[in-house]
Amino acid sequence: MTSTDYYAVIMAGGSGTRFWPASRKARPKQFLPIGSEVPMITATCQRLDGLIPLERILVVTSGDLAAQVLECLPDLPKENVLVEPVGRNTAPCVALAALEIERRSPDSVHVVLPADHVIQPKSEFQASLRAAAAEAQRAERLVTLGVQPTFPATGYGYIQSGAKVAEHGEFHAHQVESFEEKPLQQRAEQFLASGDYFWNAGIFVWKTSTVLAALAKFAPGILTPLQQAGRATGLEEIYPKLPATPVDIAVMEQADNRSVIPISYRWDDVGSWTSLPEVCPPDENGNCVTGGTTALLEDSSGNIVFGEGDTLTALIGVQDLVIVRSGDAVLVCPRDRAQEVKRVVERLGIEGAQFL
Amino acid sequence: MTSTDYYAVIMAGGSGTRFWPASRKARPKQFLPIGSEVPMITATCQRLDGLIPLERILVVTSGDLAAQVLECLPDLPKENVLVEPVGRNTAPCVALAALEIERRSPDSVHVVLPADHVIQPKSEFQASLRAAAAEAQRAERLVTLGVQPTFPATGYGYIQSGAKVAEHGEFHAHQVESFEEKPLQQRAEQFLASGDYFWNAGIFVWKTSTVLAALAKFAPGILTPLQQAGRATGLEEIYPKLPATPVDIAVMEQADNRSVIPISYRWDDVGSWTSLPEVCPPDENGNCVTGGTTALLEDSSGNIVFGEGDTLTALIGVQDLVIVRSGDAVLVCPRDRAQEVKRVVERLGIEGAQFL
Repeated sequence: MTSTDYYAVIMAGGSGTRFWPASRKARPKQFLPIGSEVPMITATCQRLDGLIPLERILVVTSGDLAAQVLECLPDLPKENVLVEPVGRNTAPCVALAALEIERRSPDSVHVVLPADHVIQPKSEFQASLRAAAAEAQRAERLVTLGVQPTFPATGYGYIQSGAKVAEHGEFHAHQVESFEEKPLQQRAEQFLASGDYFWNAGIFVWKTSTVLAALAKFAPGILTPLQQAGRATGLEEIYPKLPATPVDIAVMEQADNRSVIPISYRWDDVGSWTSLPEVCPPDENGNCVTGGTTALLEDSSGNIVFGEGDTLTALIGVQDLVIVRSGDAVLVCPRDRAQEVKRVVERLGIEGAQFL
Repeated sequence: MTSTDYYAVIMAGGSGTRFWPASRKARPKQFLPIGSEVPMITATCQRLDGLIPLERILVVTSGDLAAQVLECLPDLPKENVLVEPVGRNTAPCVALAALEIERRSPDSVHVVLPADHVIQPKSEFQASLRAAAAEAQRAERLVTLGVQPTFPATGYGYIQSGAKVAEHGEFHAHQVESFEEKPLQQRAEQFLASGDYFWNAGIFVWKTSTVLAALAKFAPGILTPLQQAGRATGLEEIYPKLPATPVDIAVMEQADNRSVIPISYRWDDVGSWTSLPEVCPPDENGNCVTGGTTALLEDSSGNIVFGEGDTLTALIGVQDLVIVRSGDAVLVCPRDRAQEVKRVVERLGIEGAQFL
């Protein structure tokens, strides 16, 4: 395979409130500088630099967010932004992008990846994508990356690996036995102990023809209307009627020709404020400061601080707090209650929608 | 006395860091909306409304702050802002203003008061000023208001009252026996128990001729140069050479013709963030929210929140914190460590002067 065959699809249509007040309706997580000094979507593109040029990166997002995508990626060709009229989970997004890539390069291989993960280092990530591409071409495989678990996470889905089916340099490809939903604690511990289970990172690599064939077989209700619509024509009418199904369920759980490539470099989906220390090295007192703010810390430890731009955050004698200042809002809560941010967001829906 | 004889001098030259980050070098406490929804200096003027018109209110401040004074008091005649070339404590300020009032109305009575206190209610305050003015005119007295202490404060100076010398309606005037510095705890408790000691509120009422005579007698080193300079002429040269002395020491502690009028309405100099609950009624959970921010409080109690303008402050599960968001800075610290703000300010002098 020559490098001209590689495409990437970045899924950037997500919304979410777990990073409120930094993430807002109008600026979801993928536009925040989490894990680096640039927005996550920009870091996602930079992570492909040298492997896939911007001309062959498609970004799928909503109409509301398209302008922000181009602000974060000023060199991205405008025609590479695919706008979904409404969000319908990942299967329609994957199908829409695959059809567009098929038009441009029917023999291509492409990677599908979320815009809001932290992955390091770039070199190992790219090496794993090369291995995945080789596996995808070896025998028309639907390839997914499986992250070696480091603790019994209950917040991730898992991939059960089976027999090894191929080797690609340092990477091994295994048959996928099953996809597992987010487990309870005990089952997560069993997964970790077995060594056969990997976190589902939601990153896929396949030949464009392979995934389109799988969609035709397992999700014709998604693919056929999109094929009939043609690109950006009639999407407004078709899209809301498509089932809002994850590609994992619509395709991966149905197919047989699926491989998982275990990886052990750093991957994090940074699901909430309390995940920040995973991707932002804490200082000697366990304080994690990110977003660009200057921090002035006196006798404070274990805090997670996010502030944007040319601002100052001063802490005196506080421990284990999450402190976020973003735009017109400030959030202060203990780390172990950060998940209750969603309650605040719910209340705001009733009492203060301007701050959503 | 007719109302045309009343003047007021508002001392608004103060700087300070105890309310950082809301108070900055360029915006000291008197310009903050503490204790009401308007800046303290505006509230101070409004508190005189009906007793002394703006045309007869002088504001003494520094050149840096003069524009802000006029922003807060748009109807104040510009010539009523007296600019001190440098701050030299209150005695030169009092002398400068008395000379200006003498030029305008030699037979007047005037009140001198700080721009950054909270006093309520206005009606009782004005009644006490009327009584003080009557006492000032009764026998050329230097009159001060003494706040009935409600606890053994160690942060205020005290006035020891002696024999009653006059009655003015509901108010009594007493001879001042002595002025006492901020006491230690035990002495403060003795003061409180004795019933003869009152907090020194730094508010004075006197005939213009009385205070000028006292200055001539006890502080000629301040008054004479200012008389020679004439208004706003040569002040730049004279002012830095004046002794930086409080009027309490330069005049009040020396004089015999001094009266104190005890008052029992609400007075607070709001010396730090932890004083806010004194002037801003806490909610049922002991949270005190001020400055205009919208607060969204979940399972939080005893917090002091200051935020300006159209902002949101969301707290989840935190207790007894001071949380301030102002301009480009955020401060979070426990209530009982709020005095350490000065350490932050000291560090900023070295590390981040832009945030001072």
